[in-house]
Amino acid sequence: MDGLKSPPPFETEWTETAWYLVEKLRTKSPLIQCITNLVSMDITANILLSSGASPAMVHSIREIQDFTPRIDGLCINIGTISEDWLPSMLSAAEVARNSSIPWVLDPVAVSISEFRMKACSDLLSMKPLVIRGNASEIIALSNAFRLENSKGADSSHESTEAIDVAKSLSVSSGSVVAVTGAVDYVTDGTRVIGIRNGVPMLQKITATGCAVTALITAFVSVDPNRALEATACALSIFAVASEIGMEVAGGPGSLRMHLIDALYSLDQPTVRSRVRIFRV
Amino acid sequence: MDGLKSPPPFETEWTETAWYLVEKLRTKSPLIQCITNLVSMDITANILLSSGASPAMVHSIREIQDFTPRIDGLCINIGTISEDWLPSMLSAAEVARNSSIPWVLDPVAVSISEFRMKACSDLLSMKPLVIRGNASEIIALSNAFRLENSKGADSSHESTEAIDVAKSLSVSSGSVVAVTGAVDYVTDGTRVIGIRNGVPMLQKITATGCAVTALITAFVSVDPNRALEATACALSIFAVASEIGMEVAGGPGSLRMHLIDALYSLDQPTVRSRVRIFRV
Amino acid sequence: MDGLKSPPPFETEWTETAWYLVEKLRTKSPLIQCITNLVSMDITANILLSSGASPAMVHSIREIQDFTPRIDGLCINIGTISEDWLPSMLSAAEVARNSSIPWVLDPVAVSISEFRMKACSDLLSMKPLVIRGNASEIIALSNAFRLENSKGADSSHESTEAIDVAKSLSVSSGSVVAVTGAVDYVTDGTRVIGIRNGVPMLQKITATGCAVTALITAFVSVDPNRALEATACALSIFAVASEIGMEVAGGPGSLRMHLIDALYSLDQPTVRSRVRIFRV
Repeated sequence: MDGLKSPPPFETEWTETAWYLVEKLRTKSPLIQCITNLVSMDITANILLSSGASPAMVHSIREIQDFTPRIDGLCINIGTISEDWLPSMLSAAEVARNSSIPWVLDPVAVSISEFRMKACSDLLSMKPLVIRGNASEIIALSNAFRLENSKGADSSHESTEAIDVAKSLSVSSGSVVAVTGAVDYVTDGTRVIGIRNGVPMLQKITATGCAVTALITAFVSVDPNRALEATACALSIFAVASEIGMEVAGGPGSLRMHLIDALYSLDQPTVRSRVRIFRV
Repeated sequence: MDGLKSPPPFETEWTETAWYLVEKLRTKSPLIQCITNLVSMDITANILLSSGASPAMVHSIREIQDFTPRIDGLCINIGTISEDWLPSMLSAAEVARNSSIPWVLDPVAVSISEFRMKACSDLLSMKPLVIRGNASEIIALSNAFRLENSKGADSSHESTEAIDVAKSLSVSSGSVVAVTGAVDYVTDGTRVIGIRNGVPMLQKITATGCAVTALITAFVSVDPNRALEATACALSIFAVASEIGMEVAGGPGSLRMHLIDALYSLDQPTVRSRVRIFRV
Repeated sequence: MDGLKSPPPFETEWTETAWYLVEKLRTKSPLIQCITNLVSMDITANILLSSGASPAMVHSIREIQDFTPRIDGLCINIGTISEDWLPSMLSAAEVARNSSIPWVLDPVAVSISEFRMKACSDLLSMKPLVIRGNASEIIALSNAFRLENSKGADSSHESTEAIDVAKSLSVSSGSVVAVTGAVDYVTDGTRVIGIRNGVPMLQKITATGCAVTALITAFVSVDPNRALEATACALSIFAVASEIGMEVAGGPGSLRMHLIDALYSLDQPTVRSRVRIFRV
């Protein structure tokens, strides 16, 4: 499907890690601040709640100094960024960095304007723990961050093709980088992990990428020292929920609903039988 | 469950009042202006429509003077408040007060910043007819309004424990105060009414608190002289819809949908058999 | 139902045109920029995705010059307009006009304030290809555009009664004008097309009008030289999806979901048997 001829076997260790993190998230109920786009707010908050996390959509610059030091994780998503929201994003990211609070960047459609490119570049300097984007976004972000790479923004942008760029971006930024697509890849610059879960119809629901970035934030907030593993597990768990939802969905409208139900109800046997994470 | 050993019997009178208000709302279709948070807009508008009300999300300061005098009720929710929205909230609340239009305040997460505290304090001076929050919010709001109370923000924040604070806040603010939780309480400073409806899974759907505050606005707009009763009935009716939705829901995603359907379809026998309102 | 005693027969030609456009939309996947209201973002993006289009909610003035020239269609909706969003709307509309990119205006609640009236008047000067509103909005918009017409804003506002006003507005603005209601009408100032599809419960779901305006944008973007026909087909297709959804819906909550599923799954036999478009 995606150019990988013979994927290595899926490892039991990963399914155990995934379930451990699902349970830890439900138990700890971390407070996740989201400065996210206007389209994604409903689904993002509902995905976080269904996972056990506690979402807080707080974006006023007047509240960052009081509020952000108290959170467990921060998700910044530039989907509907405008000049009045950018200072809050930068300020919150700075507080997170200075307080060692894990924060995750979703560089939505980073290549569509100079303004967005520059905003992402500035946000990268605040050292996100994780960056999550599709292949085109990760490649464009690498360029924005003035990396040299051999593919550039004109590649065909399959997630497999973005792996090298993702590794370079990870090395230069110091962030774990996740590239999502038919198969998802996560790298810390050295290791590369693949995730083979999910359904194509996710592409037909708005803001599922944004929602999974928020879920990554929740996962890394409960295990920040294993950001690579937590990111891979979050991607797999979200995609497993979509697979279960797809079994009863009649289209993208009902899939959106059923994946929320499935995430809420996920149990250990399901995680064990479905999680498909492998080393690349 | 909640510390009340022997609740008094539920009263027929309340079920009749609740049904009367449901029908009145469907007949009058009051125009409810919402200046609400960005997460809650979709569910709030859909809950209002399903109840029979006509929602209008209008927040521009440029439109308040023209529009707000023509509405039947105003709902202000500070969930994603920022400096550019606050003047509109204050202006709309002032128009409502001066035009004797019922307005309702939802002090979402009031304690998370000085900015939010101050905003709520200023909004309180515009005399909301009703304030609706969870126990922590009502307690924090009391403090913001510089009330003296014996519990403070460090109480365990069960809704039962907030009753005394709610009564004090009601007396000092002149507003009906609703504290929602496993059991909801409403007070006008003298009387206290309890509502024993709802399902725990409501906590796993974003913005259900915001939506119920909007529904309170619709209920009081059709019977503003009985704000205590209308508030109690709105809380019970919303919670009854969640009970009916829960019977067919597979998780928070489907509960969100089924509660909207149930609110739309509510009939008199259901209201009679399910509404659980009692004097405390 | 709507004052038309004997509607002319539905024409096969229209069902073929409708299906042709459904397929073209799925194949071309046009990029549709939406500067829309905060309530409608989720449903609008999901309706566009289900139809095969690619939505982009981009509203920052800083991104218009870079981004708007690359889109296939632009949808502007003033539902929650404020002073800071208006310049982006005007700027994007100007780019669209100058680049011959089809753009569509939804004058939501245009009559509620002088600010909104003026904003619409300014937007009209940017020559939208299509304007879509309910009868009251189209009548008010005609007035805002200082047209002389014999009915004015106090008419009873059935869509049939707005036909003459719509024709006048179409002539003076140069736009195709769609008036939606129990029966929808579309006019280019000379021809008038009627659409007899849909279900009353659509009125109980927020932002369905906004979503259909976005769908019109997608349809005209793939066939801009036949804007009248594409608009009529978009209105019919959306309404057909609601009819199919209604067959399994239990209320407005589930209808919202099922209509998205139905739009995604629409096939040629269904379009052939259900599309009800006629010349007036």
